[in-house]
Amino acid sequence: MGKVIAEQSMSLDGFSTGPNISVGDPLGENGELLHEWMFPPQGINFMVRDEMFSTAGAVVMGRRMFDLGLEPWGDDPPFHMPVFVVTRRPRDPLAMQGGTTYHFVTGVEPALEAAKAAAQRKDVTILGGANTIQQLIKAGLIDELRIHVAPVLLGAGTRLFEAATGPRIDLEIARVIDGPGVTHLTFRVTRSIRSS
Amino acid sequence: MGKVIAEQSMSLDGFSTGPNISVGDPLGENGELLHEWMFPPQGINFMVRDEMFSTAGAVVMGRRMFDLGLEPWGDDPPFHMPVFVVTRRPRDPLAMQGGTTYHFVTGVEPALEAAKAAAQRKDVTILGGANTIQQLIKAGLIDELRIHVAPVLLGAGTRLFEAATGPRIDLEIARVIDGPGVTHLTFRVTRSIRSS
Repeated sequence: MGKVIAEQSMSLDGFSTGPNISVGDPLGENGELLHEWMFPPQGINFMVRDEMFSTAGAVVMGRRMFDLGLEPWGDDPPFHMPVFVVTRRPRDPLAMQGGTTYHFVTGVEPALEAAKAAAQRKDVTILGGANTIQQLIKAGLIDELRIHVAPVLLGAGTRLFEAATGPRIDLEIARVIDGPGVTHLTFRVTRSIRSS
Repeated sequence: MGKVIAEQSMSLDGFSTGPNISVGDPLGENGELLHEWMFPPQGINFMVRDEMFSTAGAVVMGRRMFDLGLEPWGDDPPFHMPVFVVTRRPRDPLAMQGGTTYHFVTGVEPALEAAKAAAQRKDVTILGGANTIQQLIKAGLIDELRIHVAPVLLGAGTRLFEAATGPRIDLEIARVIDGPGVTHLTFRVTRSIRSS
């Protein structure tokens, strides 16, 4: 059985996008700074970027991320595997070039189940957004968090970890990579504990 | 001239204390998990803890931190240098054993000025709490952030970086230390930029 891995770039002050997201500005104001380490990746960042999909057999993402990404990812999206989009309005799958097919599933847990089935023994990568990751963390369904900490305080935006999303969750540091302009932190989710 | 260094332990989800702080529970629920790496420090954590005060000539802290810490720190507090407490009600200095004297200053910027004067050419360590650090970051008065990231999602508590505290602030990664049960991230504050 593969792992369920949430991947997210985050500012030091905890934002996964800047403020004022729109179709024309899908990452929000200054949000591109969170992803700068990937475009283009330098040194070890190259390996970290490639690792995102190398062990994965399927991807899960939220509807808003899909809406904002569809155009920039283009006809041959960078996934090359099935992508399960969490949506309230299911529709027919959308096959793209290069092995990517977008599937539309109602509910985050059913989307993860479908992704696991499609991935078979490979990992499932949860690409976000924050809301999708929060729901899966709360449900105890994430095995590993890969957080790419960008050296910036955005001061506003979408919080990757909203307050009061649930009881305390213990993590274990699995790996720390000191990359150029970014710190890659990998945590295993060890257990969820009701707060005392 | 020394540097102004803010030191803070933080959960991965951005909290510097747990919820429900009181005199009997100064770190809040589960807040002790953020400081576990220091009690007692293991391996490289020992060096990181000692470094906190080795280059400092004075300390600044908020009034609430002082109120909560006064008793646990005891008659011979761990600072061994002047400590400037930001308070709205100034009072006479309080000399303790071992070289620590608590001074009470109105306003965070005057407290920092007094600490700089006392530190002479050494660094000033800002020990918190979150509110004191936020005010000094906003005012552009912090040179370095030393954040000790604890592998836990607390889900609630005091946010080290409140949203909308100001414009974007660019950082530069100065050092990453992969310690036992904690990741020590040091950032230089390079510039504050009005968001576009």
